Amino acid sequence: MKTILIVGIGAGSPEHLTVQAINALNRADVLFVPDKGASKADLADLRREIIARYVTNPASRTVGYRVPKRDAANPDYGAGVHDWHEALAGIFNGLLEDVPDNGAAAFLVWGDPGLYDSTIRIVEKLRGEYAVEIIPGITSIQALTAAHGIALNRIGKPVHITTGRRLGMVTDDTVVMLDGQTAFLTADPELDIFWGAYLGTPDEITIAGRLGAVRQQIVETRKMAREKHGWIMDTYLLRKRD
Amino acid sequence: MKTILIVGIGAGSPEHLTVQAINALNRADVLFVPDKGASKADLADLRREIIARYVTNPASRTVGYRVPKRDAANPDYGAGVHDWHEALAGIFNGLLEDVPDNGAAAFLVWGDPGLYDSTIRIVEKLRGEYAVEIIPGITSIQALTAAHGIALNRIGKPVHITTGRRLGMVTDDTVVMLDGQTAFLTADPELDIFWGAYLGTPDEITIAGRLGAVRQQIVETRKMAREKHGWIMDTYLLRKRD
Repeated sequence: MKTILIVGIGAGSPEHLTVQAINALNRADVLFVPDKGASKADLADLRREIIARYVTNPASRTVGYRVPKRDAANPDYGAGVHDWHEALAGIFNGLLEDVPDNGAAAFLVWGDPGLYDSTIRIVEKLRGEYAVEIIPGITSIQALTAAHGIALNRIGKPVHITTGRRLGMVTDDTVVMLDGQTAFLTADPELDIFWGAYLGTPDEITIAGRLGAVRQQIVETRKMAREKHGWIMDTYLLRKRD
Repeated sequence: MKTILIVGIGAGSPEHLTVQAINALNRADVLFVPDKGASKADLADLRREIIARYVTNPASRTVGYRVPKRDAANPDYGAGVHDWHEALAGIFNGLLEDVPDNGAAAFLVWGDPGLYDSTIRIVEKLRGEYAVEIIPGITSIQALTAAHGIALNRIGKPVHITTGRRLGMVTDDTVVMLDGQTAFLTADPELDIFWGAYLGTPDEITIAGRLGAVRQQIVETRKMAREKHGWIMDTYLLRKRD
């Protein structure tokens, strides 16, 4: 049986790697590195930097693969994701054929494999039997609160984690991820926002304040940063004032 | 100015330590280790094991301190927590006097300092000026989903994190932390539960299934494990079936 290691590599800093993740990468015979195209080339570079820095196993090799684009034009979001996962499962099946019997392959996943990442679900679709191990990693939520010097929750209170598409009325402290549409512009301007982009990297940007006072600054900062880097990953916490 | 490093050390496995956390521990002149009494001695031992394994700075020293008990009998939960934080702030003020000028002190925090931990709030109450740095750590939520081999969220769906005291109707996938009262017994038996205790440690226990089918097993397992170890830390995810 082959082993698939789904390894969380943190939110962007090579120092987010855990000892468990480093050991897992060194157990792998093959390390799979996705290529999402030129606009996200610095993310692929960062994965390769992590491998260069931590992988000391001389027998391992790194294999790149092209990631197909999800059909964002599909009006059925679930169906679009399903098709994309099927396409990736086909690619993974091909990649895993080259892993030696009783060998191990590692997928390097940004953040934590359990939070808004598809790898676990795609691996469940694979042909054949694999042993699967999941290695947790630091998420952008944790990098966000650390950068702002705040706790995620208030004393004994709940926290809600959602996506930009689903952001509605904010009752509990709410973290928004995967927000390509600046959904915060629709939220109550009296909320506090703690925003961050490129968290954990040297390009990290943070902005905090009353939403009504800083939202325009965030929109402009996002736009300029996206033009400069060719991509942006940002996350934010919305919090009602006491 | 002195620096306070609030270092997340993960959910229980020494391998959860990040490179950033290891580097932070090695920058500290003093490492503070809480003592929560005999019943939690193995947690203090695990902190000392982490220090022994990773701290190579010969100039640093480890200082233990007694943690007062929170007055759980105070009917006003918020007031009880407030008094407890004030008492701890007094203890921290004393501890920090012994840190050299321009030196650094580290507090080792289970999980992530941003999630259901008091250290950030207590440090905000301290006399004097300190530079504060927060180092994220793997949480028991991440150890839970990794151990069960599942993603925390479903595709594009939100996640709710709450405490046992506040568990109400479960609409979204809900993680419950700090549940001393087995609040899951009050939840819809048709939910799925993914439960774990001592996550990340050699004593890790996991149980998963339809809540109505496994809740009694969890109650009994919790009781036996608590008797054996003298303490228990457990976490679980409640999920509606599709």
